[in-house]
Amino acid sequence: MRAMHSLDNKIQLAHGGGGRLSSILINDEIVPRFGKGPLTGLPDAATLGPISGKIVFSIDSYVVSPYKFNGGNIGNLAVHGTVNDISVSGGRAKWLSIGLILEEGFSVSKLQLILDSIKSSADECGVEIVTGDTKVVKKGQCDGIYINSSGIGEKIKDFHLSKSRLSEGDAIIVSGNIGDHGMAILSVREGIDMGNGPVSDTASVQNLVLAIQQYALQVKFMRDPTRGGVAAVLNEIVSGTKVGVTLDSNKIPVSPEANALSEILGIDILNVACEGRMILICDKGVANNILSIWKSLPEGRNASILGYINNEAQRVILKTITGGSRLVDVPTGELLPRIC
Amino acid sequence: MRAMHSLDNKIQLAHGGGGRLSSILINDEIVPRFGKGPLTGLPDAATLGPISGKIVFSIDSYVVSPYKFNGGNIGNLAVHGTVNDISVSGGRAKWLSIGLILEEGFSVSKLQLILDSIKSSADECGVEIVTGDTKVVKKGQCDGIYINSSGIGEKIKDFHLSKSRLSEGDAIIVSGNIGDHGMAILSVREGIDMGNGPVSDTASVQNLVLAIQQYALQVKFMRDPTRGGVAAVLNEIVSGTKVGVTLDSNKIPVSPEANALSEILGIDILNVACEGRMILICDKGVANNILSIWKSLPEGRNASILGYINNEAQRVILKTITGGSRLVDVPTGELLPRIC
Repeated sequence: MRAMHSLDNKIQLAHGGGGRLSSILINDEIVPRFGKGPLTGLPDAATLGPISGKIVFSIDSYVVSPYKFNGGNIGNLAVHGTVNDISVSGGRAKWLSIGLILEEGFSVSKLQLILDSIKSSADECGVEIVTGDTKVVKKGQCDGIYINSSGIGEKIKDFHLSKSRLSEGDAIIVSGNIGDHGMAILSVREGIDMGNGPVSDTASVQNLVLAIQQYALQVKFMRDPTRGGVAAVLNEIVSGTKVGVTLDSNKIPVSPEANALSEILGIDILNVACEGRMILICDKGVANNILSIWKSLPEGRNASILGYINNEAQRVILKTITGGSRLVDVPTGELLPRIC
Repeated sequence: MRAMHSLDNKIQLAHGGGGRLSSILINDEIVPRFGKGPLTGLPDAATLGPISGKIVFSIDSYVVSPYKFNGGNIGNLAVHGTVNDISVSGGRAKWLSIGLILEEGFSVSKLQLILDSIKSSADECGVEIVTGDTKVVKKGQCDGIYINSSGIGEKIKDFHLSKSRLSEGDAIIVSGNIGDHGMAILSVREGIDMGNGPVSDTASVQNLVLAIQQYALQVKFMRDPTRGGVAAVLNEIVSGTKVGVTLDSNKIPVSPEANALSEILGIDILNVACEGRMILICDKGVANNILSIWKSLPEGRNASILGYINNEAQRVILKTITGGSRLVDVPTGELLPRIC
């Protein structure tokens, strides 16, 4: 911390320049948190494994605004998001890389908070941060901090996930309340003080996937409903197929906090991002087994079979509470920019 | 291209929102270039391999300004930089991920140029773009485009690279002229029209590494001199060791163009970034063999043994043309922000 304090606790351009200040930033902030294992000696690349199965590889950039919100910050998101992409692809996440883009003047104490969150989230998910990179841009050239994370996992061999396997009657299960992440962001951004407002669901879904491996062969598809929410993900899943989706509005789990805020703001909760939920489509014969396993886990306690695959090609239909039905379309515009 | 044209050829926030415009961007621009192999069907993560050896994993963000320069653009850099980090870690690069952060209003035709460069560079390097992500931020929240790339390679088993193996007399070889990349950026940025000015060296060093595998056991360390240039990299290599470096200024290869500009601007070329060069340290017994292999390759034709490992712990010393010597220190400040 020596040199960081002498720098008024602000990130400077030279922290990203490859010279002495870069070394200080790395040695003071990165090495103490992540500098064991493959990061020892700070090589240009990490040497890992080998692993016996197929490799699952994913990348995501995080630009969430504000960087901190009820339930987490951009650091948790960067870990959970990439772990979740690997998980819903039928992988067990093992190693992550973190690329930081920092704005000149960004507070070092904020950076420390974010790095602490990256560390604790990675520990909770059982993944290791093995390589990284830091760039600094001038004031006005980014909005504080952007993070990129990519990750490597090992394929769990019994998952054979393909939209082409979907057929009428398959069950669609969601692992918990939807839309809490987007609503938590929106409540900060709009300055709405709700007392006990929505709390982001940012979390890993890895355990949910590992817990149902015995039914892997009957699982046909998995995805996490992030940007665009459940509506976008379900439309994407049936796009290009001969099947559609019927959703039962009585079975869509929503927290009272997210529900209240969505009504105040007139936003359809089906369009709102989650960052710690997953959607799973399986043979109806195993749906209740998977549901009961999930409901026994803390991260799955609100899981619900919220719909079924139908034969109406590429249509997502919602059966409403009043008994009617409406089409659930993909949001066209940018409902919530920088939600993740 | 249908919808892109109707959007005035500018990136909009909704292109990153996960809805319909996101799909159009992906389907029009990403799928035609990269949508075969593991990217088919646009999964959240790519399923790859397996590979038999150890895994080499690297990440870098690219924020270069301007995004386009003499000899390349941010797209080439994003591919070469990550391929090179894997290469100098003794790996054979196989798969890359690309994360785009775009600013609202960024030109679609510029994006197309960059994506074309990513595609052609990847093809030249023999790597596949297998997964990706696109985020869009508001005007004023990034400077046009930032790219993150991460990559997976397979470890070449005979390379055992460690600073701890360095000992007095080891030869230090550079694969070509130094500083051309930084000088090419600087010439655009400063608006210096030099007629035939410096051309960025952005390129892959993968072939240089593959070509000398027969001497892998005698190679002790490799690194690419990017940010901070040869000076920063050599200081970093000897940092924490009991050895130092002696450089012979007569043996440092520099192009006439970069040399002229560095003299005009008063910049030490040793501090200037390359993006297609590598430094290799080996047993002196094989140095000439490696040199002659490299000189037979187009990307190594200006290779040179530019110095030796000495016993002066953690010091990098330059023997000057006049017969004197001076210490080559790490640059402290930010010589050239956003060089890569």
